[in-house]
Amino acid sequence: MWPDTRLSELLGIEHPIIAAPMAGASTPALAAAASNAGGLGSLGCALMDEETVRGTLGETLRLTKRPVNANFFVHKPPERDSAKDERARARLRPYYEELDLGEVPAVAPSHFPFDRKMLAAVLETGPQVVSFHFGLPDDDIMAALKAAGRTVLSSATTVREAEILQRRGADAIIAQGYEAGGHRGFFASSEVQAQVGTMALVPQIVDAVSVPVIAAGGIADGRGIAAAFALGASGVQIGTAFLSTDEAAIAPAYRSALRGAGEEDTRLTRSFSGRPARGLVNRYMEEMAAHENDLPDFPLMNPLTGPLRKAGAERGSPDFMSLWSGQAVRLNREMPAGDLFRSLIAQAQDAMKR
Amino acid sequence: MWPDTRLSELLGIEHPIIAAPMAGASTPALAAAASNAGGLGSLGCALMDEETVRGTLGETLRLTKRPVNANFFVHKPPERDSAKDERARARLRPYYEELDLGEVPAVAPSHFPFDRKMLAAVLETGPQVVSFHFGLPDDDIMAALKAAGRTVLSSATTVREAEILQRRGADAIIAQGYEAGGHRGFFASSEVQAQVGTMALVPQIVDAVSVPVIAAGGIADGRGIAAAFALGASGVQIGTAFLSTDEAAIAPAYRSALRGAGEEDTRLTRSFSGRPARGLVNRYMEEMAAHENDLPDFPLMNPLTGPLRKAGAERGSPDFMSLWSGQAVRLNREMPAGDLFRSLIAQAQDAMKR
Repeated sequence: MWPDTRLSELLGIEHPIIAAPMAGASTPALAAAASNAGGLGSLGCALMDEETVRGTLGETLRLTKRPVNANFFVHKPPERDSAKDERARARLRPYYEELDLGEVPAVAPSHFPFDRKMLAAVLETGPQVVSFHFGLPDDDIMAALKAAGRTVLSSATTVREAEILQRRGADAIIAQGYEAGGHRGFFASSEVQAQVGTMALVPQIVDAVSVPVIAAGGIADGRGIAAAFALGASGVQIGTAFLSTDEAAIAPAYRSALRGAGEEDTRLTRSFSGRPARGLVNRYMEEMAAHENDLPDFPLMNPLTGPLRKAGAERGSPDFMSLWSGQAVRLNREMPAGDLFRSLIAQAQDAMKR
Repeated sequence: MWPDTRLSELLGIEHPIIAAPMAGASTPALAAAASNAGGLGSLGCALMDEETVRGTLGETLRLTKRPVNANFFVHKPPERDSAKDERARARLRPYYEELDLGEVPAVAPSHFPFDRKMLAAVLETGPQVVSFHFGLPDDDIMAALKAAGRTVLSSATTVREAEILQRRGADAIIAQGYEAGGHRGFFASSEVQAQVGTMALVPQIVDAVSVPVIAAGGIADGRGIAAAFALGASGVQIGTAFLSTDEAAIAPAYRSALRGAGEEDTRLTRSFSGRPARGLVNRYMEEMAAHENDLPDFPLMNPLTGPLRKAGAERGSPDFMSLWSGQAVRLNREMPAGDLFRSLIAQAQDAMKR
């Protein structure tokens, strides 16, 4: 049925299609729908503490008996710069006043590290696949994951990053092209201007590594899936298309913004988290564009923008929300996740028969 | 043999693969090799006066009896700003001194307009296909081309641009993705940050227009060709891969730079011509990056950078040359153009059989 079965065999799934993690938008119902349809569902755990990870993963694994992927961020500890912190807080003050949100909070860490405790939560709760963004955890944690029989994935935005991930033990590599929504996964390259489109990136990574390659970025229907296999990928990861499914946990204003969006409407921005991520342009992104290289390191910006995003969502305004989206957003369709998954498979099969 | 024959039928060719124009690097021998191999060879005529167009096209048409494509730029007349001109000249002065090139020339138009005289040169010399970059010529020239039975192509970087081109009479549309080397073809969108990757762009344009779509950007071997067809394209245009063929007219230092280049090594720059174009990073691009939004309009920068590029090429230094390249450059192979063309076809057929 698929021209390459290396990834499906590695993951123990029928269809080599991964519904992307999407921290904040993924839900147990969304992940389970993808896994139950024969693919790999994912939970974005980057913003969760250990107890929430246990609860959310546990709930997912009650909804499906199939493999599930838990995704974590493994960024370097941020450099602190209190002058920069204060400049960022001052820049956000007018927005806090406009939205009547009181004082801008202090700059502080917001993501939970993937440490021994988090490792225990994952191993005890039981997802079969663990994926990472911004690299891989330390060698001892990698060894523990492997010893526990987990399959480990991570994202590469360049050939060099793919080679590093393979050397450090990734079982498969997500080739994340420039088109992808959300955070760019780079960790060894940092030149945003050098980020590579999916069409160019996938074959170059396929040539460089021996593990299966998963294409991501700009893939939103069966044509993109078929194209990814033609490029030599063993599977795909699809995010944005699943944001418009019933099971995605996104605010109505976000859902509505996706509905009207086209390929010209996304940009990379550092202004929400401190790291470049792709989302639909809104007022906050436009107004902060001039300052985005003078913000606290990722993820220190998150607690500063959190109240703005929340207030925007509550008021039904997209102005201050992080509207992560890839460049193929025009192809989104609103339907239940399982239906979307089955439609993607049918479309891909059709496209491959041509 | 090909899953979609609309483009080959439109162009009267066997294989729906276009060797891209590449003004400055394309030659009669390169174009003829592609056409003789059953594809469509192209001549980049943007930098040629009418007599050179007649001579070069005439030479090409003596080397092949098959269809050939002549490509022209149809940009808007630049806005003049003498203060900006002087700032640009001042910035280039140290480079002129370093290379002992004398005075920086005055800012002046450099490209030849596609006017009635150029139209006559094209119609009298006889290429079957005429393609344009940065839009399409005026309606009366379009009508004259159509009346003379010529097939007209142009590039779109967004859905909106594709719709405009179709409405104005383009017979097929080149969907130029972010990965592509050389000048971005945009004319209705100008946000460089919004430029769309090939994987996302092609299906969205295919859905929006009824004419055949030609995928371009990041396609350098048979895998990319097969992927383009999967995305719904009726053909592909390939540039960078042909730069490494024997027939390309590029300086040895440029050829050598391509040989060592990877997917991380290109950037978009305005610093050579005043319009964003993708090339391998070099000293000039890096040093001018901070000033590239304060340069004379395209194409007024060209005569200022021309002597630097020429001197760089003559001295075997890539520091000041415009090393146009797409993001799939790592896939380049050095061989005669006809051999590359036949290899692309064989690879694509293999990839489509998978």
